[in-house]
Amino acid sequence: MPSTPSSAASELPTFADIQESARLLEPHIVRTPLLEWPALGDRLSCRLFVKPEVLQKTGSFKFRGAYNHIARLPPETRSRGVVAYSSGNHAQGVAAAAAQLGAPAVIVMPADAPTIKIANTRAYGAEVVLFDRFTESREQIGERIAAERGLSLIRPYDDRWIISGQGTIGLEIAVQARALSVTPDAVLTPCGGGGLVSGCALALATESPGTAVYAVEPEGWNDTQRSLAAGKRLGNDGKGSPLCDALLAMMPGEMTFAINSRLLAGALTVGDDAVLKTMAAALIRLKIAVEPGGAVALAAVLCGAFEARGKTVVVICSGGNGDAATFRRALDAHAGT
Amino acid sequence: MPSTPSSAASELPTFADIQESARLLEPHIVRTPLLEWPALGDRLSCRLFVKPEVLQKTGSFKFRGAYNHIARLPPETRSRGVVAYSSGNHAQGVAAAAAQLGAPAVIVMPADAPTIKIANTRAYGAEVVLFDRFTESREQIGERIAAERGLSLIRPYDDRWIISGQGTIGLEIAVQARALSVTPDAVLTPCGGGGLVSGCALALATESPGTAVYAVEPEGWNDTQRSLAAGKRLGNDGKGSPLCDALLAMMPGEMTFAINSRLLAGALTVGDDAVLKTMAAALIRLKIAVEPGGAVALAAVLCGAFEARGKTVVVICSGGNGDAATFRRALDAHAGT
Repeated sequence: MPSTPSSAASELPTFADIQESARLLEPHIVRTPLLEWPALGDRLSCRLFVKPEVLQKTGSFKFRGAYNHIARLPPETRSRGVVAYSSGNHAQGVAAAAAQLGAPAVIVMPADAPTIKIANTRAYGAEVVLFDRFTESREQIGERIAAERGLSLIRPYDDRWIISGQGTIGLEIAVQARALSVTPDAVLTPCGGGGLVSGCALALATESPGTAVYAVEPEGWNDTQRSLAAGKRLGNDGKGSPLCDALLAMMPGEMTFAINSRLLAGALTVGDDAVLKTMAAALIRLKIAVEPGGAVALAAVLCGAFEARGKTVVVICSGGNGDAATFRRALDAHAGT
Repeated sequence: MPSTPSSAASELPTFADIQESARLLEPHIVRTPLLEWPALGDRLSCRLFVKPEVLQKTGSFKFRGAYNHIARLPPETRSRGVVAYSSGNHAQGVAAAAAQLGAPAVIVMPADAPTIKIANTRAYGAEVVLFDRFTESREQIGERIAAERGLSLIRPYDDRWIISGQGTIGLEIAVQARALSVTPDAVLTPCGGGGLVSGCALALATESPGTAVYAVEPEGWNDTQRSLAAGKRLGNDGKGSPLCDALLAMMPGEMTFAINSRLLAGALTVGDDAVLKTMAAALIRLKIAVEPGGAVALAAVLCGAFEARGKTVVVICSGGNGDAATFRRALDAHAGT
């Protein structure tokens, strides 16, 4: 049994939390490989490695943090159940982790989330409550359901165990890079609320201190980029393209921004066309299916938003839960990839 | 340095060869994960695991055997170069392994091989010689070039080091299954000339003797199935669908059939529609891009050619080097996947 109670979830995570989370998660997660992409590396005069978290249980990295939190709930709390609000990947992560750990799950999802994400969440046995992303607050709905039914709210990123669970990816990258005798100059990760990038930055600050960590956001959803520049949390206007549905957080998290403002080397943005082109290239060249939001970090390298020349670069492809129509769109737009 | 010279390549491989090959290959290959597919397992009342060799260097398992053979050539032989004939995946495996080991490579490929396979083979620095699959013998062309230029011929499957290199996948499956506390009842692998399935059967016969190993072939290219039934090697008429371009061998290999006729539990066939449906499902559900020939073993489970009910089943997805057009065709045919 993990030693730390869930009540400490609002404290900032430490490097030791990530190490301990890695031990807790190890028997339950997929240790995704670190894949080199030599052809693209040659073209860009860099060494390029990809961490395909699309292969993680539920098709995204979110399973790590969700399992990490729910496993720490005291048995009587856990058996009452959990509730989460999510555009889809956290939903699936929480639903699957809850099912494995014997906890009922209620998931609050935007009505316009990809069909596959809603269907998958239900398939894991969760009760799905849909809401209107433009007129209702998912946080308020989630908190109300938690209070009414006595459920534990599993926040998508502002949570010690979520951040340290996602941070196990940073730990794995450091270990896998060492096994390949390389030291990453940079690690790029997709960024919505900032849980993945903050956890990885925390892991790498100790495990690979020479590695610069960057958040990558879709154009129009660059709240972390603008917040880093301003030195305080700034919101999005919500009018950007919805293509990268996994990354449509309105503002950086409090906890994640506290870490990111201290540890990130910077933040970058990419447009929809770069994302679709990257999805096609990842499918044809790397043999992995990456959803739009999962592809932004790789897109930043592939399309030059990040200057990779001369560097050893690791990018996280964080999720693969795209509809067939989205993959067809990517392949149609970039047939010659 | 590996201790065994290349001159023993015509001897049948042993289990010890596979163990030693695993040690030789370990720093140079991707240790592909063993992924569970719980949703399909639930539907079929089985536990289903996938070994995605699409993530291997060059996009298929063929890199393992190719590196394993070329690394064993004495330095002076290796520096003269190698030649191989291949429909594409062995070509890329040999080209990439030769490049990493400093050996020039000539690859004899059918003129109607997928564009991506020919282009990739050239991109690894190999000289490509095209031939007409319907009027010329690739074996004769390969042997003539080897003799004329003093190159080492790297056969695609009838070779001790090729078979034992591919067999390292069977070894990994046994180790990874043990780590997950499962014992596979069956392992299914795609089968062309039979190198992959014979190597895996050899590995599993010792490492997991209760596991039944099956070859899966495309309809019309079921030479191994018919040969097993007849107790002798029988050929194909070459008139079957060319969709599974990686598996269009005309007859089982001598060495591979000597192993397969002793160790396989059986052989199965699947049709083109099952293959395309499986490609779409693998892409949307498993997040991996599998080419037609790489998908046949998974297709046998997904479409019921193999009765999986009540069993723990591992399938190898052996390659992912499909053209964008082939993936679009699979997604178009199975939009609701």
